[in-house]
Amino acid sequence: MFSDRFDQLVQALRILPSVGPKSAQRMALHLIMKNKEGAVGLAHALNEATSYIHECSICHSLTEDEVCNICVSHERDDQILCLVESPADVMAIEQSGSFRGKYHVLGGHLSPLDGIGPDEIGIPYLLQRLSGGNVKEVILATNATVEGQATAHYIVEAAKHLPVQMTRIAQGVPQGGELEYVDSHTLSQAVHNRMRMK
Amino acid sequence: MFSDRFDQLVQALRILPSVGPKSAQRMALHLIMKNKEGAVGLAHALNEATSYIHECSICHSLTEDEVCNICVSHERDDQILCLVESPADVMAIEQSGSFRGKYHVLGGHLSPLDGIGPDEIGIPYLLQRLSGGNVKEVILATNATVEGQATAHYIVEAAKHLPVQMTRIAQGVPQGGELEYVDSHTLSQAVHNRMRMK
Ligand SMILES: [Zn+2]
Ligand SMILES: [Zn+2]
Repeated sequence: MFSDRFDQLVQALRILPSVGPKSAQRMALHLIMKNKEGAVGLAHALNEATSYIHECSICHSLTEDEVCNICVSHERDDQILCLVESPADVMAIEQSGSFRGKYHVLGGHLSPLDGIGPDEIGIPYLLQRLSGGNVKEVILATNATVEGQATAHYIVEAAKHLPVQMTRIAQGVPQGGELEYVDSHTLSQAVHNRMRMK
Repeated sequence: MFSDRFDQLVQALRILPSVGPKSAQRMALHLIMKNKEGAVGLAHALNEATSYIHECSICHSLTEDEVCNICVSHERDDQILCLVESPADVMAIEQSGSFRGKYHVLGGHLSPLDGIGPDEIGIPYLLQRLSGGNVKEVILATNATVEGQATAHYIVEAAKHLPVQMTRIAQGVPQGGELEYVDSHTLSQAVHNRMRMK
């Protein structure tokens, strides 16, 4: 519109998730007109983050060091491992404050049609990690999707020779969920997995 | 969360309009995990745009040159000037394809309580521009807000000694607007400004 570099900025902003052409234009104008300093700061933060953040060599979550701050912590129980698909899931569970063990990030889920088998999500490395003998329980916290369930089941099978307990995060009605708005699959799962109160 | 640079990136993304803490986290993760190359490109585009884009010395819209491509164009009628509050308005009108003249960007509207008077939005420069004798009509396309209306009225008064026709963009029911959802002020304006069909 105004110049090539303006159009290039609009295009570049489109890589952000859920930013369409209209919001990209609005963002570009806002940065140029109202916050050039912030835009320069954002550019710096992008360059820094992309240069220094990489996978933790132990859990495959994100870190700037060789090993992430969760793996390195002595405050956290290393006998219990929460297995998730991605660093976003680590973030979600950490923010829930519900877990004080360590993590294992697969980096995806099994998806044979896309050529993603056990090797692609590092199952051999997971089994090696579990063979160390230190881990007593693995909480399978893959997504509650078809692929996430299949991945969890595959791991239970693959690790059945190891003396490690395998648990699955509970599925059911979400907190505050009104039954009439909960989908019927979730509801039937919730009834099936009902828990005794008395 | 994962590291200082990750948190700094999340913070930096918060300067984008309508990006809250959750979307900033989602954006940061997406960039680091899925599109590092795009992130580096975005950083470059931000640095380029903030370094090279500035106000056009004639119309005060945005450009990388001394004068913008609209001001410099011989294809556009320089006897008719569309007066708007901001470059965003230039963009909106250009995208509507409804105007082939030149622009004048005020950079705001009158707002006495915020200390924004005629000098702050360059009214003296506007009058000087209109005194040149070339411009025959000014389309007042300030926003249809209280401040935009007041600014338009002020300009009509300030320029009344000049032989320049002043028009105001029409106000009424928006295209596709269903009457029951149109606010009553707009509706009463639309009835008042009704146009003869036969
Ligand atoms: Zn780690
Ligand atoms: Zn210009």
